[in-house]
Amino acid sequence: MTWLDLADDTLFGLDNLPYGVFSRGAGPGRRVGVAVGEHVLDLSAAAEEAGAPFAGLLAGGVLNPLLAAGPTTWRAVREQVREWLAGPRHADRVGAHLVPRAEVRNHLPFEVADYVDFYSSEQHAINAAAILFGAEAALPPNWKRLPIGYHGRAGTVVVSGTPVVRPSGQRKPRRDAEPSFGPSRLLDIEAEVGFVVGVPSTMGKPVPVGDFAEHVFGVCLVNDWSARDIQGWESQPLGPFLGKSFATSVSPWIVPLDALEHARVPQPAQEPEPFEYLRGAEPWGLDLALEIRLNGHLVSSPPFATQYWTAAQQLAHLTVNGASLRTGDLYASGTVTGPAKEQRGSFLELSWGGREPFELAGGETRTFVEDGDEVVISATAPGPGGRRIGFGDVRGRVVPG
Amino acid sequence: MTWLDLADDTLFGLDNLPYGVFSRGAGPGRRVGVAVGEHVLDLSAAAEEAGAPFAGLLAGGVLNPLLAAGPTTWRAVREQVREWLAGPRHADRVGAHLVPRAEVRNHLPFEVADYVDFYSSEQHAINAAAILFGAEAALPPNWKRLPIGYHGRAGTVVVSGTPVVRPSGQRKPRRDAEPSFGPSRLLDIEAEVGFVVGVPSTMGKPVPVGDFAEHVFGVCLVNDWSARDIQGWESQPLGPFLGKSFATSVSPWIVPLDALEHARVPQPAQEPEPFEYLRGAEPWGLDLALEIRLNGHLVSSPPFATQYWTAAQQLAHLTVNGASLRTGDLYASGTVTGPAKEQRGSFLELSWGGREPFELAGGETRTFVEDGDEVVISATAPGPGGRRIGFGDVRGRVVPG
Repeated sequence: MTWLDLADDTLFGLDNLPYGVFSRGAGPGRRVGVAVGEHVLDLSAAAEEAGAPFAGLLAGGVLNPLLAAGPTTWRAVREQVREWLAGPRHADRVGAHLVPRAEVRNHLPFEVADYVDFYSSEQHAINAAAILFGAEAALPPNWKRLPIGYHGRAGTVVVSGTPVVRPSGQRKPRRDAEPSFGPSRLLDIEAEVGFVVGVPSTMGKPVPVGDFAEHVFGVCLVNDWSARDIQGWESQPLGPFLGKSFATSVSPWIVPLDALEHARVPQPAQEPEPFEYLRGAEPWGLDLALEIRLNGHLVSSPPFATQYWTAAQQLAHLTVNGASLRTGDLYASGTVTGPAKEQRGSFLELSWGGREPFELAGGETRTFVEDGDEVVISATAPGPGGRRIGFGDVRGRVVPG
Repeated sequence: MTWLDLADDTLFGLDNLPYGVFSRGAGPGRRVGVAVGEHVLDLSAAAEEAGAPFAGLLAGGVLNPLLAAGPTTWRAVREQVREWLAGPRHADRVGAHLVPRAEVRNHLPFEVADYVDFYSSEQHAINAAAILFGAEAALPPNWKRLPIGYHGRAGTVVVSGTPVVRPSGQRKPRRDAEPSFGPSRLLDIEAEVGFVVGVPSTMGKPVPVGDFAEHVFGVCLVNDWSARDIQGWESQPLGPFLGKSFATSVSPWIVPLDALEHARVPQPAQEPEPFEYLRGAEPWGLDLALEIRLNGHLVSSPPFATQYWTAAQQLAHLTVNGASLRTGDLYASGTVTGPAKEQRGSFLELSWGGREPFELAGGETRTFVEDGDEVVISATAPGPGGRRIGFGDVRGRVVPG
């Protein structure tokens, strides 16, 4: 219940309440906001005016202080925001802090500490192996033993809406004897789900898989833009580097874990049984329905529930060697790909390595991303009462280098 | 010339003047300092007292504001410090800000933004391939085309002196059918040289190889601790991850590029000719003489002049795809290994994959690092007039997990 005039099917109701950072016109700089309906609640201003105990956490124009404060504070802030938006007596005072979402500019909602990318969709890994090595190619022998991952570049994580400049670099198509230098010809997307760490951990002390919700604040969408040709030439033996680091886009609204209670599902059965540090009692599969649109055309609907390794297992793995977490760490799931053709999370897979161009409505086809293309990744998840909650879109338009 | 009483052969004379961050006992918190002789000049205090224009850059207890200020400021600060230490009229005032280096505690001198590790010693790459794949193994086909690199974990870069906790993780020796979980049994070091970025760059705009000194502030030593068994099991196909991220140690004193003028040498001939973006007119080979000591025993003397790819080429490569630099970015050269056995920069190589234990004085031998071992990496470089300048040691003692 709310005094706000929300559509029945809004994806941004009181069950959601994701956090972001915005500014508005020539206004007073960056503020912490909460998306609700078609508006943004200026939470920095509302909290300051109300003398809320957490107001100081929201005064810096970035989410990190709130992230660091931990689950007890996150729940307290969420309850207060819900109360302000539900109780009619708050309508006038709080209503004055609502701004139309269409009028704000979103900023990167948190300062990224370290960025890790995983590879945790089985179908994606199967497809990638088949495309690169042939239909008989097997999953790597370690794939079902550990959540394979690597560090990406934190400094080039950008907010949705940031233009993506086509990278140049060295590439060597199979038919060429020598590498050449030039703009990437195989620019790709990767539809992923990102997890934002709030509470840090100590070096030397692994984070137990059961402590996931003590550390992770919330969830966003990630487009892990990839230059397949640059990646292919550089990545043996030390992994992807420039093929990834030119840009990584994130959605502007971080959905708190508490909003995803009804999205939780058991993960797929894991065989062989994982090592003990990866075994958790609580199910952290998440039933997020992703959608990928290219220039407005729906090209794929990847289902996140099919992910083999959960975010809780990924967090336990990334710290099992004693590596510490910091506030603002981001880790992404890896490309989300389901079993069907129209569930593939990258153009590499949708076009099967460029061999099978896929159709957009109106007869246009694509293999990889072209200059001027805009890719939008969106997602919804089940909420209470049959309603759905939404994630902010992560969008990016490619411009020539 | 200086009013200080410096030994003739000091490695920390007025030709050096590296920067660090220190605290002292119950004193007033972290300060920026300059190492000179057996002392540290409290530069934060000296600059504040003198009303120096750059005092504000040194007030935050970390080098980043100074790093961001750029070469003109770096030169101005260096000149001022030299004048304060040279001119007898400054002796009393500045002398009051000198503290014995033995009495200070060093802190991580800068906040690390992104950390990249390269692989740029040809002999190291040859040795690694031979150890892993046999004596006939070739360098990877991309090795002489591009400086292979990958992102490491910025959050676990720690200052010299920080204990290193032996990591646990999954590993699978060749003789075993299945992986197992436990403490790493193949803990290793990597003696490397680190480059600290001061001036940031813009996304989408590669940094020309000739602009190296416009961006890079200075040089430190790096021990890229590695757990070879964990690394071996995880690293296909996406590269090293937990085998590296548990800890990376850096020396506490950052030597400015200007102090290394006399250390500059041409790099080895490069064949095939590098792509244009990697071709620079200025020689940025550096004649640093590294030394590795294990529990006080000298075990190796890796020569940095043998590196194939220079720091300038590495910087151009890491940004050629449009990735941006940030103040506090750190990138390391990769293990420094020369042609001779006693010039190898890792225990993997010194013990040839554990097959040829190497001797310490007194009959002890080693293959990999054992609990309780302390490894110290140090280095000197040529300065003016036949004198040498020194780098701070990077030391770490391994403790059980």
